[in-house]
Amino acid sequence: MQLLEERIRKDGKVYDGDILKVDGFLNHRIDVGFVCELGKEFHRLFGGCGVNKILTVEASGIGIACLTAQYFGCPVVFAKKSRTSNQDAEVWSAAAHSYTHGTDHTVIVSKEYLGKDDKVLILDDFLANGCAAQALLDICGQAGAEVAGIGIVIEKAYQNGGKALRAKGIRVESLARVASMNLRDGITFC
Amino acid sequence: MQLLEERIRKDGKVYDGDILKVDGFLNHRIDVGFVCELGKEFHRLFGGCGVNKILTVEASGIGIACLTAQYFGCPVVFAKKSRTSNQDAEVWSAAAHSYTHGTDHTVIVSKEYLGKDDKVLILDDFLANGCAAQALLDICGQAGAEVAGIGIVIEKAYQNGGKALRAKGIRVESLARVASMNLRDGITFC
Repeated sequence: MQLLEERIRKDGKVYDGDILKVDGFLNHRIDVGFVCELGKEFHRLFGGCGVNKILTVEASGIGIACLTAQYFGCPVVFAKKSRTSNQDAEVWSAAAHSYTHGTDHTVIVSKEYLGKDDKVLILDDFLANGCAAQALLDICGQAGAEVAGIGIVIEKAYQNGGKALRAKGIRVESLARVASMNLRDGITFC
Repeated sequence: MQLLEERIRKDGKVYDGDILKVDGFLNHRIDVGFVCELGKEFHRLFGGCGVNKILTVEASGIGIACLTAQYFGCPVVFAKKSRTSNQDAEVWSAAAHSYTHGTDHTVIVSKEYLGKDDKVLILDDFLANGCAAQALLDICGQAGAEVAGIGIVIEKAYQNGGKALRAKGIRVESLARVASMNLRDGITFC
């Protein structure tokens, strides 16, 4: 999506340690009008798929999911992060590892809000190694919910997450796919 | 706001320990169309105040803030929670205590995204003792930003947070004000 690639080139900041910061419009300050344009694009891509629920994970996915859900006319469920494993009989849960923060955590969704009648679009801001997306897929599997696909704002296409998900036959649509990035040469897109 | 009071009566769940769960439409599953109605009401209340930024705190404030910001045509900044105190020269920070979780944490906002040219509407899902709101006010003070007011979805009016804020001369508008709640009698509104 050209609008997004331009914005990443303009406002994204590359740091050592494979970090791309988009805090200025997506992750800390949210440019709501701009994110609505991303939401319209997700709807163009997945609008014909019968999606009746958007699933994301706190915190940075919530704004994108809520603004996008308006075009689908469906609710959002956001998975909560827990520092401890959660064996509560009332929740679906899956383990996830954050490479950014070097931490393990559990993501949980109340059984009340995800089930076999749901057709789910999973949304997230970033896809790199795919841990968060895998955890959300795992939760959909436990719930018996059908997954229409995964929508990602920025995919680090040089990492393995997207490849592994697509190899499973899952439809993954990333609005921008970063081919490479470093301090010297900046960002190139696929 | 009658629509909200009706929804809280219908879907809110009262638990021991002064807990009101509204996970079904506000805090875990988000009824996006319904939250847009709350956003329109916040805009009716604060639309004439020159607000150019909405400030909230992760995670449960983000959806409300993003959906409301559309009516104001302004961006959202969400404060991040950190478990440790943060002395980073690049952020405004304030301490906050969560009575729900019994934890202390620090909320931080990058100096880049809040400053003296901002006229801020602070939004949050709940107001009880007012710790989160006080921390966000503190951050606005550090940044030299003007605060147009505080918009709250559900105020526990029998706790002191709202009273203390209003005593400081801050405009606080709560869409629903709970006068009392308990397992036996349910919820009554002011």
